[in-house]
Amino acid sequence: MGEPQWLDKREARLWESYRDTHRELMRALEARMISNSGLSGADYALLHPLSEAEDGVLRTRDLGRSVGWERSRLSHQVSRMEKRGLVCREECVADARGSMVRLTELGRTAIDAAAPDHVDAVRAYFFNRLTPAEQAQLTTLLDRIAADLPETCPTPDCDD
Amino acid sequence: MGEPQWLDKREARLWESYRDTHRELMRALEARMISNSGLSGADYALLHPLSEAEDGVLRTRDLGRSVGWERSRLSHQVSRMEKRGLVCREECVADARGSMVRLTELGRTAIDAAAPDHVDAVRAYFFNRLTPAEQAQLTTLLDRIAADLPETCPTPDCDD
Repeated sequence: MGEPQWLDKREARLWESYRDTHRELMRALEARMISNSGLSGADYALLHPLSEAEDGVLRTRDLGRSVGWERSRLSHQVSRMEKRGLVCREECVADARGSMVRLTELGRTAIDAAAPDHVDAVRAYFFNRLTPAEQAQLTTLLDRIAADLPETCPTPDCDD
Repeated sequence: MGEPQWLDKREARLWESYRDTHRELMRALEARMISNSGLSGADYALLHPLSEAEDGVLRTRDLGRSVGWERSRLSHQVSRMEKRGLVCREECVADARGSMVRLTELGRTAIDAAAPDHVDAVRAYFFNRLTPAEQAQLTTLLDRIAADLPETCPTPDCDD
């Protein structure tokens, strides 16, 4: 391997901005969600796919895939939400080894109450800052980056 | 408040792509770093600013600010790295209430060994997918989003 090609000043700026903007945007959305509805970002992340699933129920495996979390993180978060009555665990009828997660009535009420302000926040902090042409361009760039990533399994500690 | 203006299909696609691409990119970088150097993303996140600081030392507060982590997450990660001999804690000479984190020789060796492959990976997974004009445009869009975010304090659970 030759001399590493370090990032120049312009590249380092973009790389830092890419990571920091994501972190600060997610933090701002989460802070607003907690103060508005008492739900955390992690609560919402799981309630959302469940609320869109048929009968409000998903295989645990599919739920994990939809949020991209590894198993132990998902399991801890489901346990926390189960204690608060937002979801419940069920055995999978079709597969004895599988388990399912079901949205409860309370969970449905919670996400229905949180969603309108959350979508307003996503518009205010993200979409309203970009023209439709910029949104289209950003979609193109992100898709290109995503398409060429090596496949990895979720790891326990990659939340940065 | 009127009827919420839900995301349309195109907007939902971009929003999902924005979050998923970030997560998968960080995961791919971390998987490669772990396999290449044994350092996690969190290790590298702290070693990097320390390695660039004068004498390899920073106030704990400034280190936390530079990575955007809340105090308890930073403290746990510094403890883990201290046990492995990558950093050490020191009292702050100028401020009795303050503490400092210092890169050890082992920590310096570890980041020096990890950095060349990491910068190669950042180029392969991110920069090489974008033309210089696209990089410039992405910088502009991200800066505009970042500039208008409400100020929030780091919260314990906003790693999504």
